[in-house]
Amino acid sequence: MKRLNLISIEEAQERIDTQFIDYELETEELLLTECRGRILGEEIYSPINVPDYRRSTVDGYAVRTEDLEGASLDAPILLKLIGKSEMGHLTDLEVKPHETVYVPTGGMVPAGANAMIMQEYTEPKEDGVLFEISASELENMIDVGGDIMKDSLILRKGSLIRTQEIGAMASIGKKIVKVYKKPRVSIICTGDELISIDEDLTPGKIRDMNTITLKMIAEELGCIVVRNELVKDDFDAILKVVGDAVDESDLVVVSGGSSVGEKDVTADIFRTLEENSVFMHGIRVKPGKPTIVANIQGKPVFGLPGHPVSALNIFRIFVRRALDRIQLQKDSIPRMVRSSCQEGFVASPERDTYQMVRFTDDSMGHFVKVTGKSGMITLLTKADGYVLIRAHDNVVNTGDVFEVILFD
Amino acid sequence: MKRLNLISIEEAQERIDTQFIDYELETEELLLTECRGRILGEEIYSPINVPDYRRSTVDGYAVRTEDLEGASLDAPILLKLIGKSEMGHLTDLEVKPHETVYVPTGGMVPAGANAMIMQEYTEPKEDGVLFEISASELENMIDVGGDIMKDSLILRKGSLIRTQEIGAMASIGKKIVKVYKKPRVSIICTGDELISIDEDLTPGKIRDMNTITLKMIAEELGCIVVRNELVKDDFDAILKVVGDAVDESDLVVVSGGSSVGEKDVTADIFRTLEENSVFMHGIRVKPGKPTIVANIQGKPVFGLPGHPVSALNIFRIFVRRALDRIQLQKDSIPRMVRSSCQEGFVASPERDTYQMVRFTDDSMGHFVKVTGKSGMITLLTKADGYVLIRAHDNVVNTGDVFEVILFD
Repeated sequence: MKRLNLISIEEAQERIDTQFIDYELETEELLLTECRGRILGEEIYSPINVPDYRRSTVDGYAVRTEDLEGASLDAPILLKLIGKSEMGHLTDLEVKPHETVYVPTGGMVPAGANAMIMQEYTEPKEDGVLFEISASELENMIDVGGDIMKDSLILRKGSLIRTQEIGAMASIGKKIVKVYKKPRVSIICTGDELISIDEDLTPGKIRDMNTITLKMIAEELGCIVVRNELVKDDFDAILKVVGDAVDESDLVVVSGGSSVGEKDVTADIFRTLEENSVFMHGIRVKPGKPTIVANIQGKPVFGLPGHPVSALNIFRIFVRRALDRIQLQKDSIPRMVRSSCQEGFVASPERDTYQMVRFTDDSMGHFVKVTGKSGMITLLTKADGYVLIRAHDNVVNTGDVFEVILFD
Repeated sequence: MKRLNLISIEEAQERIDTQFIDYELETEELLLTECRGRILGEEIYSPINVPDYRRSTVDGYAVRTEDLEGASLDAPILLKLIGKSEMGHLTDLEVKPHETVYVPTGGMVPAGANAMIMQEYTEPKEDGVLFEISASELENMIDVGGDIMKDSLILRKGSLIRTQEIGAMASIGKKIVKVYKKPRVSIICTGDELISIDEDLTPGKIRDMNTITLKMIAEELGCIVVRNELVKDDFDAILKVVGDAVDESDLVVVSGGSSVGEKDVTADIFRTLEENSVFMHGIRVKPGKPTIVANIQGKPVFGLPGHPVSALNIFRIFVRRALDRIQLQKDSIPRMVRSSCQEGFVASPERDTYQMVRFTDDSMGHFVKVTGKSGMITLLTKADGYVLIRAHDNVVNTGDVFEVILFD
């Protein structure tokens, strides 16, 4: 009988990385406030210095550092107060030797001064201000261009746009931003035993979860789901739907029928659509072994196992990788973080295994195994992420450190 | 002069936790597919067993374990094939001693059998099927209710609804879900030196970032921003806007004016709106020391520093905590994960300090310090999260393990 030709996780990632190197999404222009979660489609250079004046970061007094050498609580130094720098306005005051000017947070530091002293370390007197500490140059102030230099590159093409990237673009007045269009993804679920959530449950059937969960995870990863269908196990029907989906999408996922059983037609359908399109079938991993990846019209087309847990797992790891590639996203936030096992267990998996874990309540970053059969979606609701346990690692010991792949 | 009455991080969290214990958001009913990222407002019990038949998790053969005792590659055992369990239908076949039935993945395991053998470990013969391995009870199958038992509690009120929680609800046919309404949040930014992104930059002014970044982070945390305004430093104008905002919102954030300088009117405004409403002013932390929290009409009202980096930091840590409380979200995904320092540095902070860090590219979970002045938003664009360095910790050594607070 047919068997899967299993490859390692690393080999699978390598093949996905290299297959779609020439596929690049189109870009579109959006308002800055609509860009959160999108991938930047241009390099961003600053047209201005930020700040474009010397800016105080505290409420206090602008001083010349040489005037306060040796100042302390026991030996405070008095400087003459010559005025105040008004918030939101340039000041033409100039600090000369033994003079000082009050500057609020965000206000302009006058010429002549080279540091700010917080008012907590001062005492106002009738004839000036007493300073209880000395200062080092540029302390408590930001120089012209100290945050962003004019003409400098501030964000690279392919960066994920988070709240702080939006803040950085706001600070240079960037109102319209070029981003990659959201990847258009189709989710096609197959299986005669599946009925949709809108139908009544009949004997021998189970509720389809994948049309819903795979759509959710795709949207979570920033995609637009253009097709989301449940199709019966019929070769021609599936062939038609998948063919149309490839035409309309940047990436296609078919769940169910990815193994080598009688009704597992997914690989044949991919080959019918394009000869030699299937470049891997089977990953030495659990859950999710019977995974197919094809290159049809240069686009990634995945065949995932029908098990909801397996399908989600492969989506999070391998489909996500293909999505990152076609968006040129090289520096996404790492999804893996280190954590140590709070309670050891016997492992001995036959294949590399993504073991569901949850963090313990002590918030010290320890994890424990979440147990149960791998087909159970309820297990996932108790988990915070996965660890990868390598095949033939016999025991996971208390205190062993793993990288936890976090769920979104 | 006035000084802040600083309290520790732990004391601040404790006060926030206890102040708003009686404030609970209203709930609303949504379609299941609209619930991702929302907080569950009811306990979910299952009305059915999942699966409601004994379900195979593999393509293979239903067997009686006692028939295959001692089976191996060298000594395979032959069983008589009496039929096939069709996907999506109940089967009335019954497996008697020395018989077997083919069952596809997801199909019903017939009566009499108590395990499934994957077809990879079998060989079809003319007069039956040869089995090369033995099986243990319930292997490769899920019993009735094995994923979800009828009447069992599957999700608790206050749970974050992620993709997998939606899958679990889909599997029991839950179409309409009661969730907490999104918290209504108002963001009021003050500062005479600020101009909005739509205006031209004039001398002495800087671009307002906080109206945009605080709105983004609030939305990221699942809130609806009902007011988002930039107001000049005028007591009466701010008083009016904040008063209206408290009436219309579940939580209010005012940025700027939270310290004790001349123009720092936020605390006075909170007290004018409600006497004794300010229950903390100043946290022994950096960045973000001059933080105010008040309880007005039983609602959390925050005064944040105007620095974009400080404001975002305090929002992520303390405003988030108040948001969690009013949504009863007790088991949110931990935002802290352990990581070790790749390159030690001298710390000696005067206050507990949230130090921005980024993960190194080796994906081994090491972090390095991101350096620069704390007022710089561009620093945040280079960071993956923060670590908390305690006051007077002189040195962070290479290899020291910290909890990294991840950015969203």
